[in-house]
Amino acid sequence: MSAFKYDLLKQDEGSQARRGRITTARGVIETPVFMPVGTAGTVKGLLPEALKEIGAQIILGNTYHLYLRPGHKLIQQLGGLHKFMNWDRPILTDSGGFQVFSLGELRKITEEGASFQSHIDGSKHMLTPELSIEIQQALGADIIMVFDECIPHPAERKYVADSTNLSARWAKRCREAMPAGSSDSALFGIVQGGMHTDLRKQSAEQLQEIGFEGYALGGLSVGEETSLMYEMMEFSLPLLPADKPRYVMGVGTPENLVEGVARGCDMFDCVMPTRNARNGNLFSSFGKISIKQAQYRDDETPIDPDCDCYVCRNYSRAYLRHLFMSREILSSVLNTHHNLYYYQQLMAGIRTALEEGRFHEFRAEFYRKRNQ
Amino acid sequence: MSAFKYDLLKQDEGSQARRGRITTARGVIETPVFMPVGTAGTVKGLLPEALKEIGAQIILGNTYHLYLRPGHKLIQQLGGLHKFMNWDRPILTDSGGFQVFSLGELRKITEEGASFQSHIDGSKHMLTPELSIEIQQALGADIIMVFDECIPHPAERKYVADSTNLSARWAKRCREAMPAGSSDSALFGIVQGGMHTDLRKQSAEQLQEIGFEGYALGGLSVGEETSLMYEMMEFSLPLLPADKPRYVMGVGTPENLVEGVARGCDMFDCVMPTRNARNGNLFSSFGKISIKQAQYRDDETPIDPDCDCYVCRNYSRAYLRHLFMSREILSSVLNTHHNLYYYQQLMAGIRTALEEGRFHEFRAEFYRKRNQ
Ligand SMILES: [Zn+2]
Ligand SMILES: [Zn+2]
Repeated sequence: MSAFKYDLLKQDEGSQARRGRITTARGVIETPVFMPVGTAGTVKGLLPEALKEIGAQIILGNTYHLYLRPGHKLIQQLGGLHKFMNWDRPILTDSGGFQVFSLGELRKITEEGASFQSHIDGSKHMLTPELSIEIQQALGADIIMVFDECIPHPAERKYVADSTNLSARWAKRCREAMPAGSSDSALFGIVQGGMHTDLRKQSAEQLQEIGFEGYALGGLSVGEETSLMYEMMEFSLPLLPADKPRYVMGVGTPENLVEGVARGCDMFDCVMPTRNARNGNLFSSFGKISIKQAQYRDDETPIDPDCDCYVCRNYSRAYLRHLFMSREILSSVLNTHHNLYYYQQLMAGIRTALEEGRFHEFRAEFYRKRNQ
Repeated sequence: MSAFKYDLLKQDEGSQARRGRITTARGVIETPVFMPVGTAGTVKGLLPEALKEIGAQIILGNTYHLYLRPGHKLIQQLGGLHKFMNWDRPILTDSGGFQVFSLGELRKITEEGASFQSHIDGSKHMLTPELSIEIQQALGADIIMVFDECIPHPAERKYVADSTNLSARWAKRCREAMPAGSSDSALFGIVQGGMHTDLRKQSAEQLQEIGFEGYALGGLSVGEETSLMYEMMEFSLPLLPADKPRYVMGVGTPENLVEGVARGCDMFDCVMPTRNARNGNLFSSFGKISIKQAQYRDDETPIDPDCDCYVCRNYSRAYLRHLFMSREILSSVLNTHHNLYYYQQLMAGIRTALEEGRFHEFRAEFYRKRNQ
């Protein structure tokens, strides 16, 4: 029997928001949760100890990147991804689908899978549902995602329908490659269907027929209007079983997280806090600031006076601007630390608000601060 | 009265090596000591807490770089370099001379000082002995270096003689700008004289006539044979007063440190451990390894099995190679951590050996391990 389970601790009365808990063989994850992205076996610039200090409960690994370099068999031989990167808390791996489909001309899709050329050395590969599962199992992921096609936006309805059906057949092959209860790891299905509610519904039903330990919404935050993304969440999330975790992939801004939670989402991941950090864009309770701006040259205040992270306790905006302008490594390290802390604190605040039955007030206060 | 003092704790019987202690307003420095280089207000890739964890007692700051960006007046206004970069232990600043003289065609020397163009934006500047002291005081350095000309190697004897005399006149102007006992900071003179023993002797005498709180050897490790560098140390260090700290600037390899100590040097600095780290060259008790080599691809052992640093306790060579090949930020962070720890441990080992009267044995063992 798998160690994996989801407990719904509390359902918000004024929204679809829910406070829950995921249990894995590597520890519990309090939800709603944001998962920092660790593409190539490292959350860029952060030590595992720093990740724990800021409260990260689970991180993401990328099947595509780790398969190409250093290779999943090597990582397996060295004891798995957790040991390799010195992280003993849960890891969720994506299926590689999203990255392969981002390669554009370099990839081709057939019933069998997706053939593609490496962005590193041009070498040719074929990623199938079975290989994706093999890779993720070799990495030792606690949560494994089905291999699917991430549909671009906009796309013809026929393309979306065909692709959604193909993803469903691939999802079935993933489940067959990793039967329920066959390990401590969980397998999550991914709802596609583009921006069509009927296809989303069909996809959600196809996946539940197969049966997974959790369900994700894929194909969102791909360039559509934010209101359309919210509409898709609002429609699709309630179609998923209440006793399983729900994950919206690749989302998003702090506002997206609050709205995603309100619509019933439990898990999020996004490169935004880490990538923005490296570009000098820092999150705060009153919005985003670009640290390179001249106005911060002699600013001795911290990024966010309301933030009690290591960076805000010890460094001025002037110093962070200096590091950024000087292209110092520490610029990425400190900016990433603060941004991820901001995201983790936001989610911790949401969880507490849900426990105390004041999510509605939390959401109002969140927007009030930003619009001051 | 200045808080600065040097205590000679123990003189080695078999060599010129000495165990000492420097006291500053910001704490004590056990010598012999290696000082990590923090060019632009950060030791590249390392948090101040990590520097403390590896045992750094004092770090270097660069006058030239900090003067140009973000500017010494800004740092002063923000409370000084210590506060700016969150480092409360001693800081030694160089005078800017070395960097300015490395600019080649971009600089011109007169009696007044050195005029140069910024490597960042081409703006024109004039660095004088007085301005160098003003900058270093504005930064709040605990140990301030006189402004001097770093003589290239090889150089005509006449050039060396003239330059050494100019540096002596500049040293006097530095002392006048910062009289003995006028602050808690110390001012160090720098012995020049190229590779000529008579000019080294003359320079050492000129400086002692002026009087400084410590003395450095400049113009070494500039391309000369290692044996010639050792010869210059061996000749010059005993010319300096025994009751003041002696510092060999810009040196060097682990072997150079052991040999420098044996010749009576108390303080060292070098970019080698930090720069090498970023290039994937890692120090160990048995020599240097290049982590990018294919042989480390599946090597699950740490960099140095004898090292108990954070990196060696938690990461394999295979992981460090992966990070380096993937150009991950964490590669520089972890490599720098290990390399600086190696240097700090080497100096700690030397200090203990000196205390226990077995420096001779330590030195023999140091070479035995590398030649295994
Ligand atoms: Zn912060
Ligand atoms: Zn080590």
